[in-house]
Amino acid sequence: MTSNIYQVQGVTAAGVAAGLKKDGALDMALICSARPAAAAGVFTRNRVQAAPVIVSREHVSNGRAGAVVVNSGCANACTGPEGLAHARKTAELTARELGIAPEDVLVASTGVIGAPLDMDRVSDGIPELVKGLSPDGISRAAEAILTTDTFPKISRFRGRAGGRSYGIIGIAKGAGMIMPDMATMLCFVLTDIEIGAPALRAALADCVSDTFNRITVDGDTSTNDMVLVLANGSAGNGPLSKADTAGFRAGLRNVLEDLARLIVRDGEGATKLIHVEVAGAASPSDAERAARCVANSSLVKTAFYGEDPNWGRIMAALGRSGAAMEETTVSIWINGILLVEGGIGKGAAAEADAAREMKGKELTLAIDLGRGDHRDRVTTCDLTHDYISINADYRS
Amino acid sequence: MTSNIYQVQGVTAAGVAAGLKKDGALDMALICSARPAAAAGVFTRNRVQAAPVIVSREHVSNGRAGAVVVNSGCANACTGPEGLAHARKTAELTARELGIAPEDVLVASTGVIGAPLDMDRVSDGIPELVKGLSPDGISRAAEAILTTDTFPKISRFRGRAGGRSYGIIGIAKGAGMIMPDMATMLCFVLTDIEIGAPALRAALADCVSDTFNRITVDGDTSTNDMVLVLANGSAGNGPLSKADTAGFRAGLRNVLEDLARLIVRDGEGATKLIHVEVAGAASPSDAERAARCVANSSLVKTAFYGEDPNWGRIMAALGRSGAAMEETTVSIWINGILLVEGGIGKGAAAEADAAREMKGKELTLAIDLGRGDHRDRVTTCDLTHDYISINADYRS
Repeated sequence: MTSNIYQVQGVTAAGVAAGLKKDGALDMALICSARPAAAAGVFTRNRVQAAPVIVSREHVSNGRAGAVVVNSGCANACTGPEGLAHARKTAELTARELGIAPEDVLVASTGVIGAPLDMDRVSDGIPELVKGLSPDGISRAAEAILTTDTFPKISRFRGRAGGRSYGIIGIAKGAGMIMPDMATMLCFVLTDIEIGAPALRAALADCVSDTFNRITVDGDTSTNDMVLVLANGSAGNGPLSKADTAGFRAGLRNVLEDLARLIVRDGEGATKLIHVEVAGAASPSDAERAARCVANSSLVKTAFYGEDPNWGRIMAALGRSGAAMEETTVSIWINGILLVEGGIGKGAAAEADAAREMKGKELTLAIDLGRGDHRDRVTTCDLTHDYISINADYRS
Repeated sequence: MTSNIYQVQGVTAAGVAAGLKKDGALDMALICSARPAAAAGVFTRNRVQAAPVIVSREHVSNGRAGAVVVNSGCANACTGPEGLAHARKTAELTARELGIAPEDVLVASTGVIGAPLDMDRVSDGIPELVKGLSPDGISRAAEAILTTDTFPKISRFRGRAGGRSYGIIGIAKGAGMIMPDMATMLCFVLTDIEIGAPALRAALADCVSDTFNRITVDGDTSTNDMVLVLANGSAGNGPLSKADTAGFRAGLRNVLEDLARLIVRDGEGATKLIHVEVAGAASPSDAERAARCVANSSLVKTAFYGEDPNWGRIMAALGRSGAAMEETTVSIWINGILLVEGGIGKGAAAEADAAREMKGKELTLAIDLGRGDHRDRVTTCDLTHDYISINADYRS
């Protein structure tokens, strides 16, 4: 047991201000495992992939890693061979300072696309990061990876495996360009559980699909998305039983689900978190399509911002989603208030009740297509004036 | 020749305030042909279809129509059997007043989805509309069909066929819930050319695909979209030669293109009209996918609002579009300023030049994927604070 709730055995971290962000905020993070850890990663499926995505995918392919070095303020995406060289150099410099192999260092970047990474600042930042490493440095690391985020995102879990206690700690950043496709924005998870890389990879893929891959802020998928998990085995739990593995998966899902929700809650300009739950779909893909289309509709999102139960926009989004549906079998609820039944509105009293519910910060929009047994869920946020301000002014 | 530039032989129109809009503005329109006209229509592919869409599709199926009656302020969508009865009743009442068959009346509605149509007001409005019919009533009709639009949309064309002069006049409404799918928002076109219904239908389908089906405001496809064309033959041109037919198609395309652009220019909250032109795609569908994805990206649209040549967002949208692409062969121009070549930014001077260009009201964003010979184009607008205000407050 440790005194700091964010500590995990054998894990140290640091955050520094290397001068990559204009405002002097923390902009580089390092997370380190005392011994080589089993590692797994999932990466963006955007065909445009940032240099650190390419390098980290290479480095994690052997199932082992010792450190993750991250910068905010510059995505190092669309930067060509020079950007790739910068990402590799970042891994090398970090490896040298830590005395480990460059292939054991994973790199990640987030920020403006297309700008070159300022390697002078990165080179100066790395030794400072290594000097700053501490068992309770995760909070500073979580702060250093933010861009338009308004708060750091940290989640933790404690479980038992093989009679030993282990911990999972995860940090993430999000806010904009969020509609992960088999990955997410940046997310780093550290655990001291002892687990093989293949099992870790399987657990990650499984947990990502219904957590990070079921959120959206603006329907834009980033060039820099990645989720990395390092398990350093410091807990000394030995081979995992079936129950232990299930327990770890549950814990990992918990942490990823938490972080995914925090990202949407901190969605650029967002004032509300909305769970779009679709049931009664004819197929799993219909359920997903319908939920995604509603969750990404600008008109649905602005209606939530306006606290207006304008369910016609929800019907229109369902109708264009590509999911098999017939108007006459659709029902819609907001926080349990039945707004539409058999495709027809339940009237002014129901809308007034729903409008009252919509004043809340976290809402459930439930839809039953009445066509089958399949369901899915996408978490989204509202679309607000502040989203526009943030994104019209982002680089200026 | 007529004195009013918006007159077409044998066509009268009217607009009245029937009390369907809260603010007492014009909210019902009638367009009438002095004799039965050849007619064609295309309708929304949204699976949720408004009652007037269902009724007009039925009525236009015989290739003949005599009048179009339209209301704004209420979409009569998601209103069930009662809504369908209201749409039929609207056609019947109009037919009775005009002394024509109900099947010869086409109906259209636009406004809030899910609210019942106030038939008392519609019933009172129809005789008033018929009384108000006049050869120069098109301007009032164009005004009466608006919702969040800020100006009426009218386009005209004059051509010659069989040695006779003919005219085409079109009106449209748009602004929000605009990403037509094989149709558009409301658009009504009248012409005095003599043409058979099958030829009219073919011309309409052809012209819609690269005009109305290539615009987007917010990526939302309406439940009420329709384009109707009535050709009453008053020009007396006789059978059309091949050249005459080509000329008519060119004229019709002209009018539809004009109206489509006016809709985007008046997109909710829009300050800029942006033509997204994609070339060098490996297939026609890749070209369309890429153009649509960029044109619908909230991040691209807010960057245009901010007059920021943030081309990384364009690359990210291309990368998630599903089109075959490789970063290294992409070039991007704004108004002819080369911003990206081979996937790499051309630097600060190019961006400064592009930023200056972006202060304009109409812009061309050209993209070459460098993968093949196919091209496509989608016209969009920027995403602004006013879009949020309009849609958060729409029903209140």
